[in-house]
Formats: sequence, C-alpha cells, structure tokens
Amino acid sequence: MNISRKSLDIVKISMSKYVINTPVLKHKELNSICDSEIVFKCENFQKSASFKFRAATNAILNLNETDKKNGVITHSSGNFAQALALASKNQNIISHIVMPKNAPNFKKNAVIKTTDNLIECKSTLEDRVKTTTEIILGNSTVVSELIQDHPDLDYILCPIGGGGLIAGSALACNAYSNKCEIIGVEPLNVNDAYRSLKSKKIEYNLKTDTIADGLRTNLGDINFPIILDYIKSIICVNEDEIINAMKLIFNKLNILIEPSSAVAFAGLLKEKEKFKGKKVGVILSGGNVDSNKLPF
Amino acid sequence: MNISRKSLDIVKISMSKYVINTPVLKHKELNSICDSEIVFKCENFQKSASFKFRAATNAILNLNETDKKNGVITHSSGNFAQALALASKNQNIISHIVMPKNAPNFKKNAVIKTTDNLIECKSTLEDRVKTTTEIILGNSTVVSELIQDHPDLDYILCPIGGGGLIAGSALACNAYSNKCEIIGVEPLNVNDAYRSLKSKKIEYNLKTDTIADGLRTNLGDINFPIILDYIKSIICVNEDEIINAMKLIFNKLNILIEPSSAVAFAGLLKEKEKFKGKKVGVILSGGNVDSNKLPF
Repeated sequence: MNISRKSLDIVKISMSKYVINTPVLKHKELNSICDSEIVFKCENFQKSASFKFRAATNAILNLNETDKKNGVITHSSGNFAQALALASKNQNIISHIVMPKNAPNFKKNAVIKTTDNLIECKSTLEDRVKTTTEIILGNSTVVSELIQDHPDLDYILCPIGGGGLIAGSALACNAYSNKCEIIGVEPLNVNDAYRSLKSKKIEYNLKTDTIADGLRTNLGDINFPIILDYIKSIICVNEDEIINAMKLIFNKLNILIEPSSAVAFAGLLKEKEKFKGKKVGVILSGGNVDSNKLPF
Repeated sequence: MNISRKSLDIVKISMSKYVINTPVLKHKELNSICDSEIVFKCENFQKSASFKFRAATNAILNLNETDKKNGVITHSSGNFAQALALASKNQNIISHIVMPKNAPNFKKNAVIKTTDNLIECKSTLEDRVKTTTEIILGNSTVVSELIQDHPDLDYILCPIGGGGLIAGSALACNAYSNKCEIIGVEPLNVNDAYRSLKSKKIEYNLKTDTIADGLRTNLGDINFPIILDYIKSIICVNEDEIINAMKLIFNKLNILIEPSSAVAFAGLLKEKEKFKGKKVGVILSGGNVDSNKLPF
C-alpha cells in the first residue's frame, strides 16, 4: 500500500477539528541517558487518552448515512473501546461496545461513561475489532503531525500490538520524509510481529502475559502487508525493561503513561548504541493506566 | 507599572529560542466537574520543570558583559535555584547557588547536576532572591503564549508565592486581552498576598507550614505594586484542597505536578460557582516533585 502525501493531508485536515494535535516533549537528561536527541509525541494526551481516538474518529467520519443511523459496534478490551465510544458520542452516533469480562475495571468504567451499551463477553482474540483502512489512515496522523514539526527526525520508535499504529505511521513517514525510518518495538512475551516479519507470514501469540495490555492483540491481516513493505526491524523488550521505561518517564517527565506506551522508549533504552547521535521520535501511544495500581 | 504589547513582544521573541512554548492541556471530565471550560498551561513541562526558567533566562540575557564574566548568584530553596543554574549553564555563565540546609534533597540534587557551586546556608526568608523587573518580564511570557493561543479566556488562575508570576501574568494579560481577568490563588497557611491586598501594604507570613513549598516565600516589594494595580481578588485554599487538586490532576491528566502548582486548580474547584460557564486558564507552574514521596 502506498498513499500519497495529498491523500494523507486530506485525512489530517478532515480530522483536525476533532483530534488534538498532541504536544511533543523533550528532556535533556533523557537525551544524555540515551546519547541521542529524543522527541516524545504524547498521544497519552489525546482525547480518550490514546492514539486510538484518531482511528475511531476517522472510521466514524467515513460512515455512510445508513450506518450512522444504525450506530457502531466494536469488540475491544480497552483503548479502542473508549475511543470509539467517545468518537461516536461526539457525532451523536449510538455505539455498542463489547468488552471481555476480564478487561480492567478501570477501562470498563471509562467506557460506561460514554456509551449506554456496554456488553460483556468472554475474552478471545478472535473477538477483537477488524482493522480497516480508515483506522490505519486515522492513525497516520500521529506521524504526519510529528514529521511536520520535526522534519529532521532520523528514526521514529513505535509500539506494535495489532499493528495499526505502525502501519499508519509507516505510510505517513514514507509520504512526508525521505530520511526517517520507523522501527517497531514489541514486548518479548507477545512478539508475534517480530516473528512474522522474519517468517513473512502472520505468526500467533500463544500467551498474552505482558503488562502491556494494549499490545496483547495479534497482528491484523490488513496491517501486516504494510509492515512487510516498510518496516525493516523490530526490537523486543522484556517486562522489566517496559516497567523501567515507564518509571523513567514518570520520574523525569512527570507523566504517567500506560505500559504499552512505554514499550517504544524501552526499545530506545535497550538499543541506545544504534541511535547514538541521532534524532529519534518516540510515540507515547496512550495514558490509560490506573494510577492507584502502579507496577513500580 | 504598565508595559506595552510591543515591549512584551520583544521579551517573548528574545526568549523564544531558549524557553519551551509549553503545551496546553484540556480534559472534558475536569470541565464537567468544574462546569467551565479549562485550559491548563503546563509550565511543569518547561525546562528545569518550572516557569522560573523563563525568569532566569530573561535575567541572564539582560546581564552586561562584566556581569557575564563574573557569573551570577542566587539564594533559593528550590525552583529558581534549578532554573538559574540551568539558564546560566546554557549561556556558559558561572552560577553560585545558595540553598537553605533544609531544602528538599530532591531539589538540591537537581541543582548539583547543573552548577559546580552549591553553597548551603541556614534558612531565612531574607536570604531569598530579590525580584527584579527582568524576572517579572520573563514570567510574563507564560500568559503571552496562553492568550495568543486562547484569546477568548475569561479568567486566568495563577498561584502566588513571591508574586513574580502573577505580576508578570497581569502585565501580559493587560497588554494582550481586554476581557480576561487574572485571579490569584494562595495557600491559606501562607496567605500574605491575600492579607496584603486587603490592607494595601505588605503583610508577612509568620509560619511556612504549607505543602506548597514553592509558595512559602513572602511577597516581593517590586511585585506588590503591580499586584495592587491589576489583581482584584485572591482565593485562599487549605492543605487538603491543594492535595486534592494535585491528586485529581494526577488521576485525570496523568501528570504529576508539584503542590505549589496545584494551588491554582484548587482555587477553581473551591469557587466553581464563580467560574460557571466561563473559559478559564489554569497555570500549572511547576513539576518539581519527588515522585517517590507523594502526599496521596
């Protein structure tokens, strides 16, 4: 898939009045620790506290009139559920949100606030939302904004769960920059994308035992070909490395991000030799975390 | 004191390559809680994690060549010490920082990283830095930025310690807006500014027992006439109200701010009837807090 800069501009402009152009943070001490210049793109400050609001908004904007009347439905354990509930509510569209019984109460409560129709179900991977082109294009706007403000980035580090964020990021990076490379970062315990990139076919996670609950989902079949086209490498990080990155961001930037979101920075810390002297964008994808239950 | 828009523009432009144009955050749920539209101006993301970096930078930029060679000295228990040490280092100027023996270790350690000359002394109020016009003008840029992005603000809530931030804010508000009013917020336990505004002469704090350590300092004599000119009301908040505001911002915005910084939002929560239906800017003045020692 190859999307022109013009098409991405149209997506960005059509969404601009609904989504937040999230701030970018920098921190000298973190630069010193990593020996590179880091810009954090803070999607934890996006509406519904994650980048998924972009995906949901673009999906809603592309509904036809009949669909709008019928409302929307999604299966999600967390951030996409919140994002779709809020994006629908903003457009006066009815949403039905199906969440696994074992989703964190914290995330369920956030959804209840914005939808009247929360349905609980058993947790299975197959229940998850199907990734569509609208979602990918919505996600692309994170990197569109980032490269517009920082056209001299050498790398962008992006977490991988279902692959929708990195697919959108790759399309935007390809359209707007001729020097920047997107690198994926994934929890070692659910590294289906890392293995899929090696074998060139979709591999599956047999377990979902990572603290990065937003990344437990398996790689989507529409995202995968885009990842194969554009992504050359994926860094795997273990649970301690994820928690350490989350803690470092909390202590230095004073912001609390969710573990899934800390994964990208964990990749930078782990392979800092690779990024030495470079300018690196780090996508902080979400901030939905129970501040009363910190892992550090 | 009355400063023209043009003079403030010059200050802002001369400082713009040194300071961060800090992001503004919004949160729908906090809007609902307060029944008003809130924009948080996040100086906790400023360099050295507080607005004081603006004051220090402008002071450094206005030194003559002899002063630059001699270096600078300040007495401060916290944020201004960090700010001046960093601003001096950035301009290759030697700094001597005098800090009270009982200043938090957390803040001392931050200063040690950027100056070679930390001198410890006994804690007295008289030791504090003298507020100067450069400092006030440097501070004015917080509100210059805020009003530029949000010209329709009805009110801006600003914490008061020595009064340098609210004095600068008042000058900028007067120059850039014809409808916005600055309201001060102060801890009840150290409400020298509240009492001074009533009696029209500088009153003193006999105790400094507030968690908002950045606001323990007494009103400065250059700031006070500006406050008398422009500030009509000051809200006093108690210790529980400060901690509650800090916690609410942590839970909802996922950012950790220092207690002094939470004071402004505590004022909004306390007098929300007054701000009903209005658009209110809240200055989050700093983020220097030991994340291992939270008061909630």
